[in-house]
Amino acid sequence: MEKATRGRFFEDFRLGQEIVHATPRTLTEGDAAIYLALTGSRLLLHCDDGFARRQGLPRAPLADLLVFHTVFGKSVPDISLNAVANLGYAEGRFLDFVWPGETITAVSHVIGLRETASRENGVVWVRTRGFADGRPVLEYVRWVLVRKRSRDSATSEVAVPELRSVVPPQALVLPPRLSRLAVDPRATGYPWCFEDYEIGERIDHVDGMGVMESEHRLATRLYQNTARVHFEDQVQRESRLGRCIVYGGVVMSIARALSVNGLANALHLLAINAGTHANPCVAGDTIYAWSEVLDKAEFPGRDDVGALRLRLVAVKNRSAAGFPLRDAEGRYDPSVLLDLDYWVLVPRRSALLHS
Amino acid sequence: MEKATRGRFFEDFRLGQEIVHATPRTLTEGDAAIYLALTGSRLLLHCDDGFARRQGLPRAPLADLLVFHTVFGKSVPDISLNAVANLGYAEGRFLDFVWPGETITAVSHVIGLRETASRENGVVWVRTRGFADGRPVLEYVRWVLVRKRSRDSATSEVAVPELRSVVPPQALVLPPRLSRLAVDPRATGYPWCFEDYEIGERIDHVDGMGVMESEHRLATRLYQNTARVHFEDQVQRESRLGRCIVYGGVVMSIARALSVNGLANALHLLAINAGTHANPCVAGDTIYAWSEVLDKAEFPGRDDVGALRLRLVAVKNRSAAGFPLRDAEGRYDPSVLLDLDYWVLVPRRSALLHS
Amino acid sequence: MEKATRGRFFEDFRLGQEIVHATPRTLTEGDAAIYLALTGSRLLLHCDDGFARRQGLPRAPLADLLVFHTVFGKSVPDISLNAVANLGYAEGRFLDFVWPGETITAVSHVIGLRETASRENGVVWVRTRGFADGRPVLEYVRWVLVRKRSRDSATSEVAVPELRSVVPPQALVLPPRLSRLAVDPRATGYPWCFEDYEIGERIDHVDGMGVMESEHRLATRLYQNTARVHFEDQVQRESRLGRCIVYGGVVMSIARALSVNGLANALHLLAINAGTHANPCVAGDTIYAWSEVLDKAEFPGRDDVGALRLRLVAVKNRSAAGFPLRDAEGRYDPSVLLDLDYWVLVPRRSALLHS
Repeated sequence: MEKATRGRFFEDFRLGQEIVHATPRTLTEGDAAIYLALTGSRLLLHCDDGFARRQGLPRAPLADLLVFHTVFGKSVPDISLNAVANLGYAEGRFLDFVWPGETITAVSHVIGLRETASRENGVVWVRTRGFADGRPVLEYVRWVLVRKRSRDSATSEVAVPELRSVVPPQALVLPPRLSRLAVDPRATGYPWCFEDYEIGERIDHVDGMGVMESEHRLATRLYQNTARVHFEDQVQRESRLGRCIVYGGVVMSIARALSVNGLANALHLLAINAGTHANPCVAGDTIYAWSEVLDKAEFPGRDDVGALRLRLVAVKNRSAAGFPLRDAEGRYDPSVLLDLDYWVLVPRRSALLHS
Repeated sequence: MEKATRGRFFEDFRLGQEIVHATPRTLTEGDAAIYLALTGSRLLLHCDDGFARRQGLPRAPLADLLVFHTVFGKSVPDISLNAVANLGYAEGRFLDFVWPGETITAVSHVIGLRETASRENGVVWVRTRGFADGRPVLEYVRWVLVRKRSRDSATSEVAVPELRSVVPPQALVLPPRLSRLAVDPRATGYPWCFEDYEIGERIDHVDGMGVMESEHRLATRLYQNTARVHFEDQVQRESRLGRCIVYGGVVMSIARALSVNGLANALHLLAINAGTHANPCVAGDTIYAWSEVLDKAEFPGRDDVGALRLRLVAVKNRSAAGFPLRDAEGRYDPSVLLDLDYWVLVPRRSALLHS
Repeated sequence: MEKATRGRFFEDFRLGQEIVHATPRTLTEGDAAIYLALTGSRLLLHCDDGFARRQGLPRAPLADLLVFHTVFGKSVPDISLNAVANLGYAEGRFLDFVWPGETITAVSHVIGLRETASRENGVVWVRTRGFADGRPVLEYVRWVLVRKRSRDSATSEVAVPELRSVVPPQALVLPPRLSRLAVDPRATGYPWCFEDYEIGERIDHVDGMGVMESEHRLATRLYQNTARVHFEDQVQRESRLGRCIVYGGVVMSIARALSVNGLANALHLLAINAGTHANPCVAGDTIYAWSEVLDKAEFPGRDDVGALRLRLVAVKNRSAAGFPLRDAEGRYDPSVLLDLDYWVLVPRRSALLHS
């Protein structure tokens, strides 16, 4: 009996299949500190217990993307060990904060399957749910291109799920324990609130962050993500990139950390509408980021908090100053690493404290 | 008076000598998280508080090898600062779990001394004991080749200790607080239990893990291991390897983490029977691992838990698929980094929960 | 409105200005563990809860330089984002321990301003104060050379503060909760106490520590230090050094960690009298360190504890054995990275326990 697993191939997925992911993982303030050391994030909600307490919380919750990557990591051995590409995300929602000491579990359901024209791969859509001590905290759909075991194998099922292009504002969930916001702009370092951002506005986040070999591996292992392309140098040296590829979630986290310079009050992720890893990132690349305000939404009955829908674009090895994105034919600029569409919670003017 | 130390030479050891190692070290959940980020380990017992509690424990204990490396690190300034080579391990036993917040101390006794034929070095055998808040948690014998201060110095004592080649099953210690095991195979991700492993069976752990400069140094410093060969680039660039050598414990930890793919239910180390660092590892190497079942043992009166005696072989820069080990003359294959013989605790079938 | 900041230029500072730095930061035992993994420090007070408790403390306090770098990091976005050079430190005093779970805040006052002869830069002096949960824990003066927005802009204010060259012993503050010291030399590993160090004595700390790209970045991000010169490879590859410069605080921490070999009983920083980053450090450099005893001071009414005034010199890529410092013209040797003048708390003989 073969004891080690090599992961599912396209033929191993069934529509409606439920997959309970292995390795529940207790996240601690140790993980929070490592995540901060890896990203340099200055998002106040995740690094200042005092600020969190003033918002009615017991302490600083774990960074939203730390939770996302941990849930994602749980799903890798079951879903994407034989993936050729991570094609997209949709309908992602953050449902609650996660606290140090809580244990993350994850379950996925197969909601779509379609063989590609070449018959060598197939697209698998899964809806993954993450829980903290059993409480739902995150859900999202992702789809991946997965190798077939054999070109000739028949695939009985074809289903392409209908997915919302944007999570509608009324589906956004304010974290249950969050009280009325009260934000001292001197603490976040930036005075800008919900009312200050205009739809269509673009922000160059200025700073750049190099990614080195050890850092992206520490991050990816912290999430217990076992995808071999991030670690197996002996094999990856012969690959097209000539070295290991950086996990897309590392780019996401660094871009969000860079975006603090201009979006320091974008306190907490509410939703991921869509996301594309447009080009690969390898160690040695310097990441820059820019944002665009795509939409704004209010919460009924709340004058302290709003939601911004933002595009966060990460680029490599060039300043984000020109807001690079696509060429005239609509193809991503070769410098673009990530194009992420998300909703984020921001204080409204009435929630800003005056010093 | 010389304030800084350069470590003991062979002449400085005396048979029967007791050496209380410096720098007691409180291990925390911060260390647990770093260890996980460094190894990518998915051993459930050490990353899921919920699982640990279901086994009667207060929370997830620290990884067994984190404890081992910490105790080992304590002993380095006293034993092996002037070591030429780490020759072997024997009679290693893990006596109890260690919990975050407990403080590790270590004491060694010199149990053997023998000059080499060249008269330039000598072999020193020590039995090292590790304690957590004063409670014995680990003991092992190791022997190292230590430089002599002078070729001409006389050595009065010669003693080669008799060591068991294997820790006998009746000497294995089940961690005191561990209740009857109850393991959900969906949580570890693997269904295999004690009864499923056959003596002689070999397992290729498939995955590979590159070791980069920063990661092995972070690990070795975490253990407060002060051996200069791991850190002093300026000098090591002129060495035979042309760079710093990776601490053998780093290889051990990565190999054990890789072995989760096939041995996810090998929850806790019980004993180290023997271990050889067959060839050096340097940054840039990709580590693969395979295991062989050497023996099996039951615990009288316990139908929930058994012990597997395993050989864990780490190789570099080639797949472990062919189970590389030794050539026809019995010499280690140049790809072999580590040949470790150990006992590990695994659930028996009656301890597996059915979903 | 420009949302992202590019930092203050010389023209943006006003004499007497108070700057409340952003991003309060809760330090945890996660940070303590990372700091240890980054430095390899074996300073007992910061890694052994048991030792700390025997000195009347609730647990091991955070490393003094971890606190210093965190406070420093808070000040970077406001003070030194456009700094050309970090010129010096003075009048630094550690006022109390910081405990895991406490939140660091920082405030600076501008106490000096002077344009340089070239009119392209100006020197800014700030006195920065750090607090833990609002309690003063650290204060120091630093001065930096900051770019002017324009060569032609007028500067109305000129003030050069008078600063003490040394913090006088009577201004040193013993941490309030520290009881009578009781130090087991077997625990620190070194028998030397206050009485054993003589003014003028020099100590070669022997060991060397290579600095790799990922490690210095992890450290600098842990401190939320946003200076672009440490991270922005794409730009720094074109710089004079050809790569990112290592944050001077990383050198400081590694040198202090190395100095444990000879100064293991130098338990806690009391003051920073002066400090110069004499030459830049880049990844790949191996750091060595030596110390000189500059002065000694007793505390009235205390026979258990004294203070040593030490010079700590970090050098790169050569042994510290020759105590390199300055040439005949008084210029720093090109190998010198750091010349730090500080006071440190050490036990007196009567505080040493006999085994």
